[in-house]
Amino acid sequence: MKRLLDPDSLRALARGCAVLGAGGGGDTYLTLLQALQATEDHGPVPLVDLDELPDDSLIMPCGGIGAPTVSIEKLENGNEGERLREQLENLTGRKVAALMAGEIGGGNGLLPITWAAPMHLPLVDADGMGRAFPEVPQVTMQLAGISPSPAVMTDERGNLIVFRTISGQWMERLERAAAVEFGGAASSTEFSLTAAEARTATIRGSVSLAIRIGAAITRAEGDPVTALIAEIGAFRLVSGKITDLERQTRSGWVRGSVVVEGLGADAGRLVRLELQNENLVALEGGRVLASVPDLITVLDAETADAIATERIRYGQRVTVIGFPCDPVWRTEKGIAATGPRAFGYDFDYLPVEGLAGAAIGRFPGEAGD
Amino acid sequence: MKRLLDPDSLRALARGCAVLGAGGGGDTYLTLLQALQATEDHGPVPLVDLDELPDDSLIMPCGGIGAPTVSIEKLENGNEGERLREQLENLTGRKVAALMAGEIGGGNGLLPITWAAPMHLPLVDADGMGRAFPEVPQVTMQLAGISPSPAVMTDERGNLIVFRTISGQWMERLERAAAVEFGGAASSTEFSLTAAEARTATIRGSVSLAIRIGAAITRAEGDPVTALIAEIGAFRLVSGKITDLERQTRSGWVRGSVVVEGLGADAGRLVRLELQNENLVALEGGRVLASVPDLITVLDAETADAIATERIRYGQRVTVIGFPCDPVWRTEKGIAATGPRAFGYDFDYLPVEGLAGAAIGRFPGEAGD
Repeated sequence: MKRLLDPDSLRALARGCAVLGAGGGGDTYLTLLQALQATEDHGPVPLVDLDELPDDSLIMPCGGIGAPTVSIEKLENGNEGERLREQLENLTGRKVAALMAGEIGGGNGLLPITWAAPMHLPLVDADGMGRAFPEVPQVTMQLAGISPSPAVMTDERGNLIVFRTISGQWMERLERAAAVEFGGAASSTEFSLTAAEARTATIRGSVSLAIRIGAAITRAEGDPVTALIAEIGAFRLVSGKITDLERQTRSGWVRGSVVVEGLGADAGRLVRLELQNENLVALEGGRVLASVPDLITVLDAETADAIATERIRYGQRVTVIGFPCDPVWRTEKGIAATGPRAFGYDFDYLPVEGLAGAAIGRFPGEAGD
Repeated sequence: MKRLLDPDSLRALARGCAVLGAGGGGDTYLTLLQALQATEDHGPVPLVDLDELPDDSLIMPCGGIGAPTVSIEKLENGNEGERLREQLENLTGRKVAALMAGEIGGGNGLLPITWAAPMHLPLVDADGMGRAFPEVPQVTMQLAGISPSPAVMTDERGNLIVFRTISGQWMERLERAAAVEFGGAASSTEFSLTAAEARTATIRGSVSLAIRIGAAITRAEGDPVTALIAEIGAFRLVSGKITDLERQTRSGWVRGSVVVEGLGADAGRLVRLELQNENLVALEGGRVLASVPDLITVLDAETADAIATERIRYGQRVTVIGFPCDPVWRTEKGIAATGPRAFGYDFDYLPVEGLAGAAIGRFPGEAGD
């Protein structure tokens, strides 16, 4: 066991998951409250490394699916995880040994803890994204050839669906449609796998990383934004205030855009973020400052707390940062699955360390689109 | 065994199912071709009575779900039934003893034969509607308290979904959404039950009835429409031509309306049919001539072949008939589930034998709406 996830670790984890959410993955405030309550009621959840588990242990990746705007109004009833596990065990004829966050970003990094506590199961220090992505097959397990089936989805009412699809894309399509019928959000597990498979098919250490990020913000003296940027090797894309916001919840997604008008040293700049649950691209005057699969996160300018897409409001003082994704997403397969073209953009992926550095250095103070 | 479903019975069955479809249940021409081919390849399917089966035999009600307009363009690949059966057997731990049409109306009355042939399973002489209805829980099994779960749905590509819902309404909602994602139509089984349960929870003898109706049309000399009306005790609502047609395929349904302008003795009359997969109501000048759950079927004026909602065309010469539904739909629970109010109409159900007789007698030749 690496550690017990005590209340302090959970609070740090929540802050770190929000940063890794790139705007998505669901609200971390409500999921933190749920995780604190569940672990108070049932005892803290152990965080384990994949190397600690026998090769054939069954790992259940899980989390919420749907639009984050919905998830802050439509809460789980708490026993979704138990129902997912029971069904997955029936389907596979095997016992689930540990839960894993499908995505470490946002509330989905915490939700498995709320479910693991009453089941007295550990959480694996790994996830399938190293961040949050909007679509079901945008996970490292898909890249590694793990089947998304059987997937199980349930809602707070007790409805339950099992999906066996011919591809990850079909899983996305069918699960999204079901999530919409459930009211825009639901709980699910896909890509169940063994510990042996998970050792090479997941992003390892991401729970620990999120805790470390959260702790860096918490202990920062003076300027937490600067401390965070140093901790994760991020690029400051712009500092300013939210001057425009367009957000629609539709078809199981939140889509829209956010405009940040620069203040202080960034006065005169206009940076636009386009989002589909997560922040996909940061644009300035038609130039790309950062794009998926790299992470673009909006931080509160004072506290460095990440502001999810569903919590963005007009007038907020923010710093937008961009930072590198896990190297697995920069492979050919990774870019094909999660790069700008996967989201309909007609440009190639370039790493944020090139883009942001060059663009910000080259065009200071220039007005954007 | 009651009989072997040989090619002649299948042809009669197809004609009868079309009449009992009340415009819906899917195309009978294509499903007849499929059933003829399947029984040529694998031998004829036995038609059995529920009394012939041991009490605990597992019956699989099955058929297509979606918009009939789609089903004439998007064909099954033939092995959907096998996949549904395999999954249902895995889920229940029991062997399927016989297939049953979820609805006898339209192509759904024939589709189970295409599936039963290669599996060498019999077809039960019963169904869940005695006609076709648009919604999943509009079956006698729902009235009888049989659970719709576990339901299984599959498509021609090989995707497979298992639903366990808290109600028939949720089953409808989730299956419809999945059918839409599959392209507007899919194959499914719901409300699996034992032979003992089916003896009181289904409409018995409906396959034989459909064959009898089809045979009556086939052997009619002179005027097949009159022969059919005599055979089933129907009311002639109007004879004329289709002068207006509005039909939209949306959200897994075909919805719209059809206007029939009277000819001959009915000259000057305008009768409007409103449809949701099936013909729901027949209206004349704001008066109801017939409504669900009674059957409203559009017949080719020459051949008495029923014309499904997706085959209606401007200018067709037709006779519209109304005839009584099975008595189970005229109970309080039956009317609540399938009466006009269940489809959003603000009027109470009245039996067609009262409505059509009175209205047609009282207002001959009067112009409608």
